[in-house]
Amino acid sequence: MQSKSPELDALILPTTFPASHRRYLTGSRVDLRVPYREIEQSPTHTKHGPIPNPPLPVYDSSGPYTDPDRRIDIRQGLPPVRLAWIEERGDTSTVVSELSLSPRAKARRARDGQNVTQMHYARKGIVTPEMEFVALRESMRLEELRNDPAYANLLRSHRGQSFSASFPKETTPEFVRDEIAAGRAILPANINHPELEPAIIGRNFRVKINGNLGNSAVTSSLAEEVDKMVWAIYWGADTIMDLSTGNNIYETRERILRNAPVPIGTVPLYQTLEKAGGIAEDLSWELMRDTLIEQAEQGVDYFTLHAGVRLEMIPLTARRLTGIVSRGGSIMAKWCLAHHRENFIYTRFDEICEIMKAYDVSFSLGDGLRPGSVYDANDEAQFAELRTLGELTARAWKHDVQVMIEGPGHVPMQLIQENMDEELRHCFEAPFYTLGPLVTDIAPGYDHITSAIGAAQIGWYGTSMLCYVTPKEHLGLPDKEDVRIGIVSYRIAAHAADLAKGRPGAQMRDNALSKARFEFRWNDQFNLSLDPDRARSYHDATLPQEAAKTVHFCSMCGPKFCSMKISHEIMESQTQADSMAEKAREFRQFGAEIYQ
Amino acid sequence: MQSKSPELDALILPTTFPASHRRYLTGSRVDLRVPYREIEQSPTHTKHGPIPNPPLPVYDSSGPYTDPDRRIDIRQGLPPVRLAWIEERGDTSTVVSELSLSPRAKARRARDGQNVTQMHYARKGIVTPEMEFVALRESMRLEELRNDPAYANLLRSHRGQSFSASFPKETTPEFVRDEIAAGRAILPANINHPELEPAIIGRNFRVKINGNLGNSAVTSSLAEEVDKMVWAIYWGADTIMDLSTGNNIYETRERILRNAPVPIGTVPLYQTLEKAGGIAEDLSWELMRDTLIEQAEQGVDYFTLHAGVRLEMIPLTARRLTGIVSRGGSIMAKWCLAHHRENFIYTRFDEICEIMKAYDVSFSLGDGLRPGSVYDANDEAQFAELRTLGELTARAWKHDVQVMIEGPGHVPMQLIQENMDEELRHCFEAPFYTLGPLVTDIAPGYDHITSAIGAAQIGWYGTSMLCYVTPKEHLGLPDKEDVRIGIVSYRIAAHAADLAKGRPGAQMRDNALSKARFEFRWNDQFNLSLDPDRARSYHDATLPQEAAKTVHFCSMCGPKFCSMKISHEIMESQTQADSMAEKAREFRQFGAEIYQ
Repeated sequence: MQSKSPELDALILPTTFPASHRRYLTGSRVDLRVPYREIEQSPTHTKHGPIPNPPLPVYDSSGPYTDPDRRIDIRQGLPPVRLAWIEERGDTSTVVSELSLSPRAKARRARDGQNVTQMHYARKGIVTPEMEFVALRESMRLEELRNDPAYANLLRSHRGQSFSASFPKETTPEFVRDEIAAGRAILPANINHPELEPAIIGRNFRVKINGNLGNSAVTSSLAEEVDKMVWAIYWGADTIMDLSTGNNIYETRERILRNAPVPIGTVPLYQTLEKAGGIAEDLSWELMRDTLIEQAEQGVDYFTLHAGVRLEMIPLTARRLTGIVSRGGSIMAKWCLAHHRENFIYTRFDEICEIMKAYDVSFSLGDGLRPGSVYDANDEAQFAELRTLGELTARAWKHDVQVMIEGPGHVPMQLIQENMDEELRHCFEAPFYTLGPLVTDIAPGYDHITSAIGAAQIGWYGTSMLCYVTPKEHLGLPDKEDVRIGIVSYRIAAHAADLAKGRPGAQMRDNALSKARFEFRWNDQFNLSLDPDRARSYHDATLPQEAAKTVHFCSMCGPKFCSMKISHEIMESQTQADSMAEKAREFRQFGAEIYQ
Repeated sequence: MQSKSPELDALILPTTFPASHRRYLTGSRVDLRVPYREIEQSPTHTKHGPIPNPPLPVYDSSGPYTDPDRRIDIRQGLPPVRLAWIEERGDTSTVVSELSLSPRAKARRARDGQNVTQMHYARKGIVTPEMEFVALRESMRLEELRNDPAYANLLRSHRGQSFSASFPKETTPEFVRDEIAAGRAILPANINHPELEPAIIGRNFRVKINGNLGNSAVTSSLAEEVDKMVWAIYWGADTIMDLSTGNNIYETRERILRNAPVPIGTVPLYQTLEKAGGIAEDLSWELMRDTLIEQAEQGVDYFTLHAGVRLEMIPLTARRLTGIVSRGGSIMAKWCLAHHRENFIYTRFDEICEIMKAYDVSFSLGDGLRPGSVYDANDEAQFAELRTLGELTARAWKHDVQVMIEGPGHVPMQLIQENMDEELRHCFEAPFYTLGPLVTDIAPGYDHITSAIGAAQIGWYGTSMLCYVTPKEHLGLPDKEDVRIGIVSYRIAAHAADLAKGRPGAQMRDNALSKARFEFRWNDQFNLSLDPDRARSYHDATLPQEAAKTVHFCSMCGPKFCSMKISHEIMESQTQADSMAEKAREFRQFGAEIYQ
């Protein structure tokens, strides 16, 4: 079943988006360069001549791949933009790893007695360059734009309903520090991942999305996975989980890490199981510990660990319709039952914290007992594990180790909010990171949609990161087109959540795109969208001519029945009426009063 | 731009779904035959031999096309299953139409002084065959299945959160009658559409979805539209709107109606405008009236009429970002402004009611001022029109004419519930029928997803019918693949809403599919899904062999990492432990306690 493998050298990487430029904000030091993407707009044509439309800044997760000034060499890896920051802190040293198979003979770890987590620094009151980086990245020139008349109308927006989230007027480095110190946000940034452009995960920031990659024993190759990683961040993945289980786990991960500008997560149990010959019963703490160190030395930014699957909870799953559907959860449950012993990830949790804080690996506490069907949603097995994850959160925080909590799964809409509420209560507001949830089981082949419905809702309620689901979920391994559709679907869900919460500046892109749409600036409409290529190709399927990019209709309604065209005529006629002149002038400058 | 037109005779219509049979429930009279689809399941294989799984009944909107015993002749049309019911009431007569161009020279209308609406009958206490039909169709053997031990576990479900909806334990014909009498539900059933298999639209029933078809001046042919209609109901459209605007409006509609087992809606203004030479200013009440009669005689079941766009509201739209985005709304606004007169659909509303009740055409009161962007959501123009629609609802009900209310549009999540609440309050709980809403503007090419997110939510809050959006929305006219994706996306949203409301029996399909999934009955999983072809083809993309349809893993995780396979091993080991034996036995028979 091995599909044809593209070679690393032959990979065709995506370049920039149409009409877009990768820009950088410079922070308090010259090597602190925070990327964003700027989308150019064409002017609005009026009788009185063209009126310019300002470029739109958008968050950019795509890394140097979309920077035409950067030469990318997959074998070389990305430049280590964080290296100086890490070195300057003086609390780490490089060691020759006995475990690592890495071509880089050395790895960095905390000096004895030192704790190098962002949470530790934050709790000491330190603002790290990483924190400043994410502060600039999240605020994205918003303060500056607020003072620029060209953006005044684009920045108007509805009031949000933010539940327990609250956004500051300005996202300062100090705000970032305080959120990390409180455990409400994490900044996953392994000291062995200097290629990282830091990002923050917390409900008082932009909602993030994760894309899963990884080969299985059945299909896919190393180069394919690197290709998918670059592809996924191009479309907007904020983090990537490498879930490889087959051969070449180590090499695949190495190649991904060295080329990843986003945080990389793994489930170390998968590699541990490979080391145990695929036999769950043969797993051991020693094998796991070595794997954790190996991956920490390699630069993995967060580990999914199924520490909450405890022996006593396993019988609760016997009453379920779909048992245990988490791979890690089922493996640990099998080990626990085989030995009639408590989960060693749980019993060795403090030792694991010692490893985590020596590299600043964040916990992603796995929901090994998440529901795999609507039927099993919100059951006792699920919530018993959640309470244990809360207990472990408190223990991790004693070590100043960063924590996020994984969540379901399959949950019908009326039960979604309880998941968020229970998580906030039992896990002390640690960031929630959910898979969907899927709101129905009956649509395999469309589970990017069943889950985007649930993801948008739980994101609104306060989930900090949404793990994507592709159309192939439940059916097979996603290909590149599935990855693209999955990522875009989740950017939709995350953005919808940002809008609903009222995140400052979030509605600007909607406003810009709708203005372009209303003014028949077709190319701007495409360029401002999440997937310009798709929007353009769908339009061109019926009206491919270049002239159709400026005409005042499309094939959906044709020229006579175009409501927007008629609307303009109405505006025009109103302008001519004296009584309406003032209002119409306001309109031309885009909208008018602030909402509500 | 005319695309190649398939000929009517050459249409390849979809036949039945895999492993499915179209069945009929017979009501109180032999000609009252209510269709549903039954999906066969294979047995569960256990060590003790196979245990059968019962067939799953599902609602079936596909009409006789999926009945292998029916010979379909598109030129002939479907059999007039309602004809005897209509004739027996003795309150109609056939007239020679002066307006119609129909090949059927005659049309049916109410005798002088008679009112033939389902609401009128309901208010007189009459249960019509149409009402009995929808009662059987909605309850779908649920009472019978509740008493069948084979379905006991499949019928277990979570409690819903139904907001102001409330489901009876059993959907009786009398309940249907009372809901129609109260105006909380409509049964669109023009007496000139005898081919109809009646369906009901109301929030105490299954959530329905509508698919839009129709050519525009730019593209598409008559045969293509018939083809799309059959295709759309095959995938699950409960009603179809024919929004044709180009040539052959009459013939396209005639061919669709004679072959449509579902209610057909139109926007009569489109044809009226064609009669006015495409000049909005040249519209007149007389042209509109003749068009209404012509379409009512032809058999259209509901009319979208933009009666709420009043002269005084038009200036409110000048403050908008995207003006008026409803085609009908913009046309009427243009007429109003051109003549400085009130909308004639509003001023002639009682005359229109007289036409509606002579054929039982239902109102779908159009939201001509719906927001076309997140920015414009929930603004004064929108809600001013909604209040007018409430006023018109009361007037229509004085004539016993059935009414549903159209809703937006583009609405961010935090503003969706207000739409539902305002509609219920101002329109006296008349059924709400919304387009999406789209929860963000930034994803053209994916608006089936942006809108399914909003549709699921507003369906949960109480919307009775969801008008689908295809991936081509804002970009061009949908092709067949777009129709399929749009319909399936909306079936997902509608079903998610049914689950969340706790509609009795809704979760049965989820339970059956998840049980099949957990037991590695791959073919059953495909067959039970909304789109079996897609599920199967996605699976087969990596594991095409027939043997892979029974193996206990798929290409997503491979054999060693399959959580469900491991779960079975866990169940097995628990079975062997004495203390677990009882629970495991319960599990094998599927699930256990009733939830909550």
